[in-house]
Amino acid sequence: MPSSNRRLLLLSNSRNAGQGYLEHARDVFRDFLGADVSRVLFIPYAGIRISYDDYAANARTPFEAAGYGLDAIHDADDAGRAVDEAEAIAVGGGNTFHLLKSMAEGGLLPRIRARVEAGVPYIGWSAGSNVACPTICTTNDMPIVEPPSFEALNLIPFQINPHYTDAHPPGHQGETRSDRIAEFCTVNPAMPVAGLPEGTWVRVEGDRLSYVGHAPALVFRGEEAPSEVAPGDGLQFLMST
Amino acid sequence: MPSSNRRLLLLSNSRNAGQGYLEHARDVFRDFLGADVSRVLFIPYAGIRISYDDYAANARTPFEAAGYGLDAIHDADDAGRAVDEAEAIAVGGGNTFHLLKSMAEGGLLPRIRARVEAGVPYIGWSAGSNVACPTICTTNDMPIVEPPSFEALNLIPFQINPHYTDAHPPGHQGETRSDRIAEFCTVNPAMPVAGLPEGTWVRVEGDRLSYVGHAPALVFRGEEAPSEVAPGDGLQFLMST
Repeated sequence: MPSSNRRLLLLSNSRNAGQGYLEHARDVFRDFLGADVSRVLFIPYAGIRISYDDYAANARTPFEAAGYGLDAIHDADDAGRAVDEAEAIAVGGGNTFHLLKSMAEGGLLPRIRARVEAGVPYIGWSAGSNVACPTICTTNDMPIVEPPSFEALNLIPFQINPHYTDAHPPGHQGETRSDRIAEFCTVNPAMPVAGLPEGTWVRVEGDRLSYVGHAPALVFRGEEAPSEVAPGDGLQFLMST
Repeated sequence: MPSSNRRLLLLSNSRNAGQGYLEHARDVFRDFLGADVSRVLFIPYAGIRISYDDYAANARTPFEAAGYGLDAIHDADDAGRAVDEAEAIAVGGGNTFHLLKSMAEGGLLPRIRARVEAGVPYIGWSAGSNVACPTICTTNDMPIVEPPSFEALNLIPFQINPHYTDAHPPGHQGETRSDRIAEFCTVNPAMPVAGLPEGTWVRVEGDRLSYVGHAPALVFRGEEAPSEVAPGDGLQFLMST
């Protein structure tokens, strides 16, 4: 379990309707990273149909607008050392399986965990929030590649489902999102899941958790009916599970 | 690669709007299984929020209506021997990861493959169609449990995406289905994917494949634009990839 030095900002998604890439998050980045951080190490491994260079260029815009430089890990001579020396770590969205596989094969999981436990701020969005959880078992993504394990960074003691919505195409017979999460909870009854609607995020400071956004989170656990939790500190209980 | 004795009926889904469970498939079952089969071995391992007994009872109705008895594998003293002695095998939908994990841990994958290669008819719907593919890498399901490998029965030389639709909640920023399949094709450029809309199925007889339904299938391969294929024999090329 991570130490109480951890600092995490875990966003549901990267783009709100009508806004630019991470535009909704710029002020949040500034507030979270503060004045002590000057550069962010960006991990683009979730990107599939975009080059890592292009992905890093996209991510650089909002970070520079917030006052931070961005270095992409794929540009480093030694990815592990780049993690060890990072002032802050940002992990972008895309395909969670590809992200976790790349992190694991590069030996980065214990090194990122060690840095976050030492107090280095971690920012994730979408797949980058999924890999901060104990496992990637609540991702929405297609398993297009096989990671060595579903075990992830385990920086928080609960699961996130990003892009949470229970909207469903009319007449479609496939499972809804809440069906899928309920299936997870049936086979993993002790592990709570926070469904984070787009435009929302959680911020973790040590053992304190706050939930920010314009819509309630949906919390699933075991066979209990899902409960709505309004923005604020109502998700604090997830830190002691 | 399977021998030319294989006989498979792989359905996108189990229920059409306004119809009962597998009601749309009863006549198809009769036509496919014919008069030489009297009983079907049903594998309910994809079921999560339903007991295997209840799942088998649900599946029994359409098979009995088509004139076949149904035995559930979880009722057998020896699941492997039940496969070895089955006249026909039916694999139901639900969670593909749980299905594959259960099959693999029970040592059933090579035994089912051997039976199908020997000419025993295989019927799958949804997750049951996914596991007939080379891997489960084109499932829509949440990875709620971790199978020992993503490698599946490999009874056909291409991937199926069941419940295919590109409908998307308005304003939602998550990937569409075609985005997800395109990501698969980017990292697996040699493996074609057939997106089967609900209410459709493929039937394989040896090396012949026919596609049946009311709507075109969507075929994805590598960086090519997806192509629509009307019902008929237009998917035959997938058998020689």
